[in-house]
Amino acid sequence: MEIFLDCLPCVLRQVLEASRMATDSQNIQEKIMEESIEILRDYKYYKNSPEMVKNMHQVVKNLTDLSDPYKKIKKRDIKFAKKIEPFLEHYLELKQNELYYALKISATGNIIDSAIYSNINSKKDIETEVGKDFSICDINVFQEKLKTAKNILILGDNAGETVFDRVLIKHLSVYEITYAVRNEPIINDATLEDAIESGLDKYATIISSGCGAPGVVLNQCNEEFLSIFNNADIVISKGQGNFEGLSDCQRPIFFLLKAKCNMIARKLNVTLNDYVFKYQRLELK
Amino acid sequence: MEIFLDCLPCVLRQVLEASRMATDSQNIQEKIMEESIEILRDYKYYKNSPEMVKNMHQVVKNLTDLSDPYKKIKKRDIKFAKKIEPFLEHYLELKQNELYYALKISATGNIIDSAIYSNINSKKDIETEVGKDFSICDINVFQEKLKTAKNILILGDNAGETVFDRVLIKHLSVYEITYAVRNEPIINDATLEDAIESGLDKYATIISSGCGAPGVVLNQCNEEFLSIFNNADIVISKGQGNFEGLSDCQRPIFFLLKAKCNMIARKLNVTLNDYVFKYQRLELK
Repeated sequence: MEIFLDCLPCVLRQVLEASRMATDSQNIQEKIMEESIEILRDYKYYKNSPEMVKNMHQVVKNLTDLSDPYKKIKKRDIKFAKKIEPFLEHYLELKQNELYYALKISATGNIIDSAIYSNINSKKDIETEVGKDFSICDINVFQEKLKTAKNILILGDNAGETVFDRVLIKHLSVYEITYAVRNEPIINDATLEDAIESGLDKYATIISSGCGAPGVVLNQCNEEFLSIFNNADIVISKGQGNFEGLSDCQRPIFFLLKAKCNMIARKLNVTLNDYVFKYQRLELK
Repeated sequence: MEIFLDCLPCVLRQVLEASRMATDSQNIQEKIMEESIEILRDYKYYKNSPEMVKNMHQVVKNLTDLSDPYKKIKKRDIKFAKKIEPFLEHYLELKQNELYYALKISATGNIIDSAIYSNINSKKDIETEVGKDFSICDINVFQEKLKTAKNILILGDNAGETVFDRVLIKHLSVYEITYAVRNEPIINDATLEDAIESGLDKYATIISSGCGAPGVVLNQCNEEFLSIFNNADIVISKGQGNFEGLSDCQRPIFFLLKAKCNMIARKLNVTLNDYVFKYQRLELK
């Protein structure tokens, strides 16, 4: 997805938040903002927002000497999600259309995003969100694909959301599941360590995409990932960052996310905060 | 007031909104954003936000060839405020402490700000807001000053808000009132034309400050204004922009505003969205 003009102030706001997460030094925060503005000047050279955002957050890491500024936040979010997990499991058991709700639980996990929602922190919030229906739901196509599929690749998003994904993966455990995470810490996105801490290794093979952007950018991914990505029977892409990186991709993908910003909502032709499970199959140009 | 790091993404967001108000051309909007980012790079050279914001909105004017991109918005807001005016007058009549509520009505006018609140558009919103008390209210100092004062200078802020100021000025009509507006159109701030359209000329002498920034920046003001400013018995400064320009000023000022952003709220030691009528008398350094 192209970078919209609206993304420019938004990414700058996010990097300021990250700088404060990483350091108390006003001086370093200023330097981070100044270097981020330099990156912003070149926004047209980036194909999508995750590419640009990666470079901004690299500035945070470089200037603070912290490899993982969101480490505490991620641990907190995983802990919170684990506490919610029994409720989610129970919620799913009570439903007739289990697949729909397993997908919906995974999509709901997308609200565990400190970069956007800082006030989602109670079981009640989750209950409310999980009860909201998808506004786009290509579950019929998905069920059709499942009939012949053997393996599924899931592209992970935020730490904490990983635990919600575990509920979906458990439900799909008759398939061979691969779960791809970021190659290195970036904002609050899940890394290998976060995925293991979320207990995903019990039901899936966890791999790194090779890419350290907050969204899969294919030309930054490693060969192992690309081979799995290109050959997977089904690919489920979680969250906005992966959508931004892959919305122009020509392999068929199911995007599973909450539209948390107006630009993504517009691109998907839904309303802000809608939940989406959308099958994308672009025509070869 | 110094420019906070939080102001950087915020002013960039505002200039994008202004660019869309001024033109439908995506190409020109992009150029406006690019030139604004260039201005943002130099944020440290500006003493306060209004100085920087003025230059950004000058870009909007230059690249769109529009001298007053918010003209329609301002006309709409003045029209809306005029429709509310009889309610405000009646509201005031019912009150015992008329001076307090005249000030409160003027402060409430500060929510007529398309740059920040796009959804304040009903009499009901105004009723709710006007009923909220000041969190800081130096009305005692003000009453004391009024005892010996002959003239009052009011520094205007947004178009529409001007009509609310008219209610206050009418109440203070035993004094000689001067109402200062921006020298040229900037965002939705009131100009001479807007002040006259709001009917302020009936109760006050309207002058230009000589400054075209969205907040009084003294070294950009003309001599006539500076003379009145320095010699006025009482100065009432409306809104955030004027506060940002004058918070370090050494002449005594009453700041009358709603704290519409976290930075201003922090600076005034109040909560976001609080109403403030604060007397400032800085010690000479």
